Amino acid sequence: MSEPLTLGVAGLGTVGMGLIQLLNAQSERLEKMLGRPIVVTGVCARNRDKVRQGAIGSAKWFDDPVALAKDPSIQVFVELIGGEEGVAKAAVEAALKAKKHVVTANKALLAKHGVALARSAEENGVSLNFEAAVAGGIPIIKMLREALAANSVKRVYGILNGTCNFILTKMTDENRGFAEALKEAQELGYAEADPTFDIGGFDAAHKLSLLVSLAFGTTIAFDQIDVEGIARITSADIEAATELGYCIKLLGVAVDTGRGIEARVSPVLVAEESSLAEVSGVTNCVGIDGDFVGNLLLAGPGAGAKPTASAVASDIVDIARGFVMPPFIRSTAVLEPARGVDPKARIGNYYVRLSVYDRPGAMAAITKRMSDENVSLESIVQKRPGQVHPGQAAEPPPGAAEAAVNVILITHDTTEDAMRRSLQAIEQDGHVKERPQMFRIEDL
Amino acid sequence: MSEPLTLGVAGLGTVGMGLIQLLNAQSERLEKMLGRPIVVTGVCARNRDKVRQGAIGSAKWFDDPVALAKDPSIQVFVELIGGEEGVAKAAVEAALKAKKHVVTANKALLAKHGVALARSAEENGVSLNFEAAVAGGIPIIKMLREALAANSVKRVYGILNGTCNFILTKMTDENRGFAEALKEAQELGYAEADPTFDIGGFDAAHKLSLLVSLAFGTTIAFDQIDVEGIARITSADIEAATELGYCIKLLGVAVDTGRGIEARVSPVLVAEESSLAEVSGVTNCVGIDGDFVGNLLLAGPGAGAKPTASAVASDIVDIARGFVMPPFIRSTAVLEPARGVDPKARIGNYYVRLSVYDRPGAMAAITKRMSDENVSLESIVQKRPGQVHPGQAAEPPPGAAEAAVNVILITHDTTEDAMRRSLQAIEQDGHVKERPQMFRIEDL
Repeated sequence: MSEPLTLGVAGLGTVGMGLIQLLNAQSERLEKMLGRPIVVTGVCARNRDKVRQGAIGSAKWFDDPVALAKDPSIQVFVELIGGEEGVAKAAVEAALKAKKHVVTANKALLAKHGVALARSAEENGVSLNFEAAVAGGIPIIKMLREALAANSVKRVYGILNGTCNFILTKMTDENRGFAEALKEAQELGYAEADPTFDIGGFDAAHKLSLLVSLAFGTTIAFDQIDVEGIARITSADIEAATELGYCIKLLGVAVDTGRGIEARVSPVLVAEESSLAEVSGVTNCVGIDGDFVGNLLLAGPGAGAKPTASAVASDIVDIARGFVMPPFIRSTAVLEPARGVDPKARIGNYYVRLSVYDRPGAMAAITKRMSDENVSLESIVQKRPGQVHPGQAAEPPPGAAEAAVNVILITHDTTEDAMRRSLQAIEQDGHVKERPQMFRIEDL
Repeated sequence: MSEPLTLGVAGLGTVGMGLIQLLNAQSERLEKMLGRPIVVTGVCARNRDKVRQGAIGSAKWFDDPVALAKDPSIQVFVELIGGEEGVAKAAVEAALKAKKHVVTANKALLAKHGVALARSAEENGVSLNFEAAVAGGIPIIKMLREALAANSVKRVYGILNGTCNFILTKMTDENRGFAEALKEAQELGYAEADPTFDIGGFDAAHKLSLLVSLAFGTTIAFDQIDVEGIARITSADIEAATELGYCIKLLGVAVDTGRGIEARVSPVLVAEESSLAEVSGVTNCVGIDGDFVGNLLLAGPGAGAKPTASAVASDIVDIARGFVMPPFIRSTAVLEPARGVDPKARIGNYYVRLSVYDRPGAMAAITKRMSDENVSLESIVQKRPGQVHPGQAAEPPPGAAEAAVNVILITHDTTEDAMRRSLQAIEQDGHVKERPQMFRIEDL
């Protein structure tokens, strides 16, 4: 066991350089722990200048990640390039075929091609580890693959996107509007110039699709996840939720309903006493309900060079220790086909914000529409006109349009289907000025 | 890989029966996952009647755990007997010597003999797994051994004893006195008839001693942990802490100070916004600060048949997968000797409650004693006499003794040594009716 474990690292961006830094800082400790050194013998990146930073040591430069992936000098291929197709996919495929262990942080690649890649890893008797692909430094993959292996998981949920959580925290704690909070996130480097992928919920959905497979033993079905982002959350919603004792979070939730898997990423209201409500800024948090363990909650940094490097390095350490297992826990041959259920079948309670024209009979018509669908209300709060928060979308100037007031409803348990029908009817009746806002309330 | 993994289970109490239940419930799932069945082939317990419950199947009965441990029919010995000496120790030693993997939930045994047992496991090329020994269903051992292997841990801390946390939650949320809350815990089965081991902090200290070794790569030194229980916490303290925005928790804290390991179990004040303050009832919570991952927090059930069985089963699954590693991460040969530091060297802030006689000059004398030791105060709250909570120790009847008022002090950062000297001087001056109450404030 004194032979070094040799790595080829493809991609020297934030995470790649974080990993190099970690391996340098911890080399002595890791060698003592593992009885063998971990050595980066080959690197590859878009920009060769990166190598000049000196941290790479004597690692050989490769122009082509696929060549690095197949190179006889490496035992482990570390893919930190990103992207669901193209060179990252080609390199990972080549590495597995060449019987190299693969460590990757590439959630998009796995969400799309995870099962095929896992099959190749199994056929070639190597690891495909991806701790860094979900929730950054939080070891949620190891949790599901190993620590909770003896549990049937009933539900997995979490705050899986730090960008969105940062924006929502700013909106809640500092009364920012959505656009302003997004701009701040961009300035701090927490959000991309084109933020669609994060704020649209797609990044969280990629991660959730991997958690679903691990938790429920299914194939990966990104397209069965109901995805909705945070862009339609207004300051009026944040303010109303706060007043009612809730906090709005972008949550990924997947539940084994017995009839199939209900999986969705959407803004939800959680009670302010909930541990999830406490999770602020770019922190991530994942919860699991297992039939034996009960509820487990893990919180930690969801992104960043060092936490992500920590996750990548733990995957490498597992390989150095000789731990190999099927990437999605079971052999791909026995993964069940993912069976999604219609999210409209959800039973739960809901938050609704209506911008109601200040007319006699409007509320009567609205509540009638709800009772027609058997939706009963736990609370109704009507705001006086003008009682709006400075940060929220401005009310129209007096005389410019008919005045409307925000009415906030919290329902008792009902089906999502009934909710949607009643809100559609309310919108068609014409008593509301804008499309009704509806969010699920989650009891977590 | 289709040969079954055979277990001998010694101890069929709550956890033992929980494990049997889990293995029965999950047998099909586990076999599909692991490609081999897990079968209990031998059992042993104090009371043979337990076997009549039928759940044991065709497992062979052993009167003697040592005989079970050595029996050729088993590959894994599961020790759920408990106790730091005697039959549990003899059986684990025998099992390791016979090259059986060992899974145990026995923190007392490991706290005392962990290094010697680990050495035997290493010499015999087998696992010694103990996930259930610390924090019940929370996979903190796997976290430290595997997920955070590439981090230098700076601090590990947590709520490690559910009994104490239950009692403190009752005292805080329902204004119970300590004795009353303890009685309730006993009635619910959360506390033993003799609760000393839990409420004295010793159980938490056993667990912390294992975390210290795993986190810092040292031998296990239970005797270097500064241990203090919860019995001296009064309702007056709970009430004062709440008013000042804090929560009192029994916490295990271990810090790598650079000069040695500071490790202690004691009641501390944490800010009510802290995630730890949210952890109520028998839930446990463990936090880790790693140099790369940053702060990770895990919360979950700290005890109970099913969560503990989940942890024991995860250890068994690791063995079924062929994962073997040194029990304390590194070979016992390279574990550093545990070097404790004097807890009085701690620098931090403190909560002090003084029962001050209502005399002119008393407060002047007290604050003089503090300034003599360079202890500066962040806040002073003096309670009017009679302003006491119904649940707290009764004030003396009027006329029975000289009246005293509770004075609550929060200090700025200072050394614990200076704190202790100033409080000793205050006590000797005779202006206080009872020994000053002091708790550390932890910024977690």
